[in-house]
Amino acid sequence: MTEPTPRDSDVLQRHLRDIRELLSRQRLVEDLMHRQHGSHQDLVDSITHRQTIGWLRRKLDRLHPADIAHILEALPRDQRRLVWDLVRSDKDGEILLEVSDAVRPSLIETMDSNEIRAAAESLDADELADLAPDLPPEVVEDVLETLDQEEREHVRAAMSYPEDTVGALMDFDMVTVREDVTLEVVLRYLRRFEELPDHTDKLFVVDREERLRGILTLESLLINDPERLVSEVMKSRSLVTFAPEDDADEAAAAFERYDLISVPVVDGERRVIARVTVADMVDRIREESEAEILSQAGLREEEDIFAPIMRSVRNRWAWLAINLVTAFVASRVIGLFEDSIAQLVALAALMPIVAGIGGNAGNQTITMIVRAIAMGQVEPSAVWRLLGKEVGVALINGVVWGGVIGAVVWGLYGNPALGAVMIGAMTLNLLLAATAGVLIPLMRQRFGRDPALGGSVMITALTDSGGFFIFLGLATLFLL
Amino acid sequence: MTEPTPRDSDVLQRHLRDIRELLSRQRLVEDLMHRQHGSHQDLVDSITHRQTIGWLRRKLDRLHPADIAHILEALPRDQRRLVWDLVRSDKDGEILLEVSDAVRPSLIETMDSNEIRAAAESLDADELADLAPDLPPEVVEDVLETLDQEEREHVRAAMSYPEDTVGALMDFDMVTVREDVTLEVVLRYLRRFEELPDHTDKLFVVDREERLRGILTLESLLINDPERLVSEVMKSRSLVTFAPEDDADEAAAAFERYDLISVPVVDGERRVIARVTVADMVDRIREESEAEILSQAGLREEEDIFAPIMRSVRNRWAWLAINLVTAFVASRVIGLFEDSIAQLVALAALMPIVAGIGGNAGNQTITMIVRAIAMGQVEPSAVWRLLGKEVGVALINGVVWGGVIGAVVWGLYGNPALGAVMIGAMTLNLLLAATAGVLIPLMRQRFGRDPALGGSVMITALTDSGGFFIFLGLATLFLL
Repeated sequence: MTEPTPRDSDVLQRHLRDIRELLSRQRLVEDLMHRQHGSHQDLVDSITHRQTIGWLRRKLDRLHPADIAHILEALPRDQRRLVWDLVRSDKDGEILLEVSDAVRPSLIETMDSNEIRAAAESLDADELADLAPDLPPEVVEDVLETLDQEEREHVRAAMSYPEDTVGALMDFDMVTVREDVTLEVVLRYLRRFEELPDHTDKLFVVDREERLRGILTLESLLINDPERLVSEVMKSRSLVTFAPEDDADEAAAAFERYDLISVPVVDGERRVIARVTVADMVDRIREESEAEILSQAGLREEEDIFAPIMRSVRNRWAWLAINLVTAFVASRVIGLFEDSIAQLVALAALMPIVAGIGGNAGNQTITMIVRAIAMGQVEPSAVWRLLGKEVGVALINGVVWGGVIGAVVWGLYGNPALGAVMIGAMTLNLLLAATAGVLIPLMRQRFGRDPALGGSVMITALTDSGGFFIFLGLATLFLL
Repeated sequence: MTEPTPRDSDVLQRHLRDIRELLSRQRLVEDLMHRQHGSHQDLVDSITHRQTIGWLRRKLDRLHPADIAHILEALPRDQRRLVWDLVRSDKDGEILLEVSDAVRPSLIETMDSNEIRAAAESLDADELADLAPDLPPEVVEDVLETLDQEEREHVRAAMSYPEDTVGALMDFDMVTVREDVTLEVVLRYLRRFEELPDHTDKLFVVDREERLRGILTLESLLINDPERLVSEVMKSRSLVTFAPEDDADEAAAAFERYDLISVPVVDGERRVIARVTVADMVDRIREESEAEILSQAGLREEEDIFAPIMRSVRNRWAWLAINLVTAFVASRVIGLFEDSIAQLVALAALMPIVAGIGGNAGNQTITMIVRAIAMGQVEPSAVWRLLGKEVGVALINGVVWGGVIGAVVWGLYGNPALGAVMIGAMTLNLLLAATAGVLIPLMRQRFGRDPALGGSVMITALTDSGGFFIFLGLATLFLL
């Protein structure tokens, strides 16, 4: 009864629209919030409300937790709270896992400790570990008490690894078999299961010490003669495995490159301790790129679009502050040349063109270099080759676009020397942008920093201040 | 022998480093390109070369096609060509599939038609359809000739769907069974296969007309009593299916939301015609976010970092041109106020601060709204609520940051009125940015356009020109 919506997002969007319409048409939320009943009209309202609520509840019962999570994210806070109250409590845990980090606190803050405890108890060890940082610590302790020794260790293990490692993504649901049995025995063994762990595409073949000996894909289990031994059909060479300390993004890249479904996680003695599945990796790939897109726009993290104003202000604060500082520096550079501008006021109108083209070209270069570094395609020794190429691109752009703008400026202001200064300043600023676009990420890489972080801010600051300085400096030298 | 590298990227990066070192140390590439042998030294060189080439060839033979693709992308063009010549030709097809769109042409242009034909013939129908647009049309025709009727239809079917639909991603490898047989019969049937299609996690249950009746997961095949009928254990309700015309990104979202591995693709009469797997979707999710990141930086497409200069110039041309036009407009806005600037030259130094903060805040707003729209969380009716919130954020930022900058300006220029104009101009430009950041994507959505496209350019253009106009206008009104 809690199946995914059959024909994906269209149907899901229709559900969302239905719920939205219902909530707004009935003034349901306002009325339920205030609960001022008494008059006859209120009685009629409350009957309609009860019907509506029954309808909503039935609708929510049929939806997949991921779909409910999506609907909750799309609702303003008051409506979200109402719908969240109507969800069957046995789904609470899974929904909390599915909603975005930005929305989760708004749901948890409406629950009392018993509800939170019930939700947490419905989860697997790895899921509980994911959710734990957002839950009240005393509730987490209570829930850990209810687990058996092994599960408790699983939760603690999963919680002990940093967010960007394989350890934080692994789960403990897996089927292991021995190599000295026949496939027939494995088939009989599997029939004793009520269900297999999600995304089981292979069984892990281990020895008595739980050390990985090989993998038995369901495919080889199914296509081979049941009389054969596991050791004959298992794959035992060139196995892809991860350690819990491995970088999650590199693991995701391996899943993508080798089209994997599940991979065993082994410890230093090759004992199988857990596994990671493609479902976790898909989420990881999505989150990773989201984070990159958000940080490019200067957003610290994903935002609940219905968050209170002050929370949004805090999310965007840091970037605006940095931007103001760099803008202020650029402003002081211009201030150095106030005399020149007073003599030739056209300089004020033209200087943003020089700064703008440098910022744009610099961002193009740095984006390309950062991506190449992230994919492991660039090493520091390539610096000269890359620099040569980017300088070439900058020279062509400088001469061509500088030439166009220079000609327009000559026509506009009737001043050929001013046009020539434009060409020179644009070309020089493009060269500055190209050099910085190559060197900033490569230098960050060499010093062991994340090459992506803040590169765009630095280069824009440089091409703004640099562009103003170059243009106003050239103008002061040659025109005044 | 062509297994994935066991412990993923670390090992892969070491291979890459080995190959790079070898290629540069031996001056192998230059010598092989010129092939001027004759002297004794040349003979010695050529022996060393032969050893090196043997080593390289053996190394490449052991690598997975995806890994070779990665290495090729990371090598400059001359080295890339050498390594590509050494790869065993039976891997050519798969490597061509794996390399990025930007690098693929540089490999194909070194192959003659026979090599290309051999590579293409090694591929499945759906893979051939993916590669076909990059191959010479006559070679594609030749290869189609060699296929049987059914395969040819598959290729043509896959090629007939636009790139962003399910049809372009689907493959035709799948196992179908009937519902009126026992699981034992299915198990025996599967044992007749040499191998199962990649990512087979379920069999499709169809009737005589190939219409989908249900799905039989490998899990239920394995855990249930073999005497039971397929119809008893198959899942037949709430099946996730796609039509070939469905949007690929929505399909990817469904894979992500419901943790799917493979999904049947059905036609209008529910006949199973193909399937899509999570591997295609992972690639799709990655490509989609890459494209977004690149387009934010004004790069038309992914770039081969070793591409010739002119190709890079073309890739970045359009964005720079647009930027120059908007910068020119902003410049003309400043031009309107040249008299004011001539009277109070401090205006020239301060105006970029006003424009800058507007551009930053506007990009934050539009990024958030575009993401919410893409996830189906915003509908046009939410416009007032969102506008209210963003205006609130803008007012707070305007008063706080405007106040800080206003105070600094007062101190710096000893002119309190100038400080007050700064506060007013920054606040107004932030309000403009917030309004445009909400309205531009929502209006594009209402008119059926992609809300993401070009939003950042438009808003920056608006906050630049608008910021200059607001600041210089206020200054002209109140200060002069």
